[in-house]
Amino acid sequence: MARPSDSAPRKHKVTVVGSGNWGTTVAKLVAENTQEHPDIFEEDVQMWVYEENVTIPSDSPHHAAAGDQPRKLTEVINTYHENVKYLPKIPLPPNVVANPSLVDAVKDSSILIFNLPHEFIGNVCKQIKGHILPYARGISCIKGVTVTEDKVELICDYIGETLGIYCGALSGANIANEIANELWCETTIAYNTPPCDQRGKDGENGANGDHYRDSRGQISKTQLTPVPQEYPPLEHDVLYKLFNRPYFTVSMVSDVVGVSLAGALKNIVALACGFIEGHGWNMTAKTAVMRRGMLETIQFCQEFFPETVKEMTFWESAGWSDMIVSCTSARNWRYSKMAVERGVSLQEIERTELNGQKLQGISTTKEVMSFLKARGVQDKYPLFKAVEGIVDGTFEVKDIPVLFRHQ
Amino acid sequence: MARPSDSAPRKHKVTVVGSGNWGTTVAKLVAENTQEHPDIFEEDVQMWVYEENVTIPSDSPHHAAAGDQPRKLTEVINTYHENVKYLPKIPLPPNVVANPSLVDAVKDSSILIFNLPHEFIGNVCKQIKGHILPYARGISCIKGVTVTEDKVELICDYIGETLGIYCGALSGANIANEIANELWCETTIAYNTPPCDQRGKDGENGANGDHYRDSRGQISKTQLTPVPQEYPPLEHDVLYKLFNRPYFTVSMVSDVVGVSLAGALKNIVALACGFIEGHGWNMTAKTAVMRRGMLETIQFCQEFFPETVKEMTFWESAGWSDMIVSCTSARNWRYSKMAVERGVSLQEIERTELNGQKLQGISTTKEVMSFLKARGVQDKYPLFKAVEGIVDGTFEVKDIPVLFRHQ
Repeated sequence: MARPSDSAPRKHKVTVVGSGNWGTTVAKLVAENTQEHPDIFEEDVQMWVYEENVTIPSDSPHHAAAGDQPRKLTEVINTYHENVKYLPKIPLPPNVVANPSLVDAVKDSSILIFNLPHEFIGNVCKQIKGHILPYARGISCIKGVTVTEDKVELICDYIGETLGIYCGALSGANIANEIANELWCETTIAYNTPPCDQRGKDGENGANGDHYRDSRGQISKTQLTPVPQEYPPLEHDVLYKLFNRPYFTVSMVSDVVGVSLAGALKNIVALACGFIEGHGWNMTAKTAVMRRGMLETIQFCQEFFPETVKEMTFWESAGWSDMIVSCTSARNWRYSKMAVERGVSLQEIERTELNGQKLQGISTTKEVMSFLKARGVQDKYPLFKAVEGIVDGTFEVKDIPVLFRHQ
Repeated sequence: MARPSDSAPRKHKVTVVGSGNWGTTVAKLVAENTQEHPDIFEEDVQMWVYEENVTIPSDSPHHAAAGDQPRKLTEVINTYHENVKYLPKIPLPPNVVANPSLVDAVKDSSILIFNLPHEFIGNVCKQIKGHILPYARGISCIKGVTVTEDKVELICDYIGETLGIYCGALSGANIANEIANELWCETTIAYNTPPCDQRGKDGENGANGDHYRDSRGQISKTQLTPVPQEYPPLEHDVLYKLFNRPYFTVSMVSDVVGVSLAGALKNIVALACGFIEGHGWNMTAKTAVMRRGMLETIQFCQEFFPETVKEMTFWESAGWSDMIVSCTSARNWRYSKMAVERGVSLQEIERTELNGQKLQGISTTKEVMSFLKARGVQDKYPLFKAVEGIVDGTFEVKDIPVLFRHQ
């Protein structure tokens, strides 16, 4: 089992993998906290940046000094403490250290925060596998799950199993720019501390890093290396101190499945709410659809993950709050509303408004429905089914209320 | 026990007590259903109207016929099938029968629907006591509860105990004018069918109308007279048929306490949301406050009504949907937002904007806090407490996030 050579107390080193608008925002708040808790964390926070050349905008205060020459983004961030490309005008703490080398950025870090677009995570995990501490732990800020006919895989489980570590999830009603500007909101962190990391406890079936129960309540393939005793215990309290800010209120839960699925299935419901409003119904109808969508979300979790899901999870920020915000202001909602208002298909909207970019809600809907159909239970999810029908043009928005008739 | 003289099948006669904008809307939809279910209900629906003289507006299609002379409101409703004063331009089914006599309107009715302002219910119950069928049953569309230092009394329990009958509650994210215009929404009906009315069952401690367990799970003072066998059984299915419309989707539950308290406590949360938005925070902060407010609502119900409250009730339309709509478009929210934006007190807003009319959220807040303080548990309800503090000027809106710091 990997152990530090000396047994002197050690601090957690933190790396944020990703530096987009949300990744940089998380790096900012985490770096503020490592400064406030020097006893627990190393002050410097590594942030992996996909290197590119940027020109500092002429309206930037740094333009005078930097000039018009293209500069490396990492160099700009480390010199001016601002991510001029992805989070302009937000001063970053100087202890956010931009690093263009993925492998170097994660080296020796005991806490890895994954915050980059869904589609890049596979490649990133491949590159860092074998280059991280065997006892590192992860937090995924990437919402959602991968659903196929065969299975539902949480992104944090995918990360954990690929890297041979434990990985939790952060999700909530969060808008990066608001948080970067320190406008108050809440979030939820789901982290089911592995038994081998629980101090002063008899880690039931895993005290020595044996296979533990994963998010699905099943015995994980992964054999964990416990976090060495020299580190502050990597449990809820330490993660709370790493993420909670006066403007970013954290709730800690253990239900990783509920948090992850709520963050994914809400996209189906957001499409439904856009359809409803596009059709001319008001807030009362929209809340009815949000409510039904949440009930189907809870039902989905309880049907397929009965061992681990807790109903109270859906009252967390990652549950109802994120549902409301996603159904009120997010992309899936906006463009599905537009489609109905214009009387065109969502595919048409993707072409004309999103230059062919895909709406996540559509793929989530199709994936979830294929999973349900493979089990013959799609009729137990009338709203999800209707959204697929509307996307396919086989169901009409005006018929949504019919779904909710008394059986 | 009162029984009809003959034992021929009988139908339920329905009376709506109240004829304001919401009362008339409910009379309309109920009358549509009595027409559709002539086997269960008498077609005519009595609607008690507080008599007054009205002049038909010149833009009304009935003006030509009616002229400028003041006419009795009941006569106008029964002639033109429109409540020109409280629900103008909405055609009512001809089987809505306006009746100026309260006692005559409730005579022989087995289903009484109470739908009038909170403050009139006491007087109305006094007047009809002894003039209703001993086996009548009630549905209260009046939201809320009466809270004093000593106790929390549900309006439907007050009605039931005053009249010696059982009374349930209808509550949801409902806007009368939208429903009158047949814009789709949902509602919740809470009705805990008394054992003595349950057909083909051995009514546990109440088969013969003995004292039954009331909403608080306590043995009720009321000795019920069972609904005679000649009537269709007055259970969930019959109430569903009476209220559900294609544009008004009904969910039936048994948790009268949860539904009633959610409908009352939401007013405290609506004030908080107004404060938050008035202060300049956005949707993400508002959902955080709604969420915390709902958690305190659930906690309140579970602390004081543990026997009967079910957590799933708060996912009903009367729970989360009504909370969202109340915190997005209702009076308490609108005026508390205005108060913070203008930097004045709510009392000042009541004076200048509401001609001294009171905001219900303020009295609900003070009543609930006095109940909590009398039990020394007010600190377990930080949001409710903060709202009282803001109303009193002893707490600042900007400090709301501080309430939610980790303990």
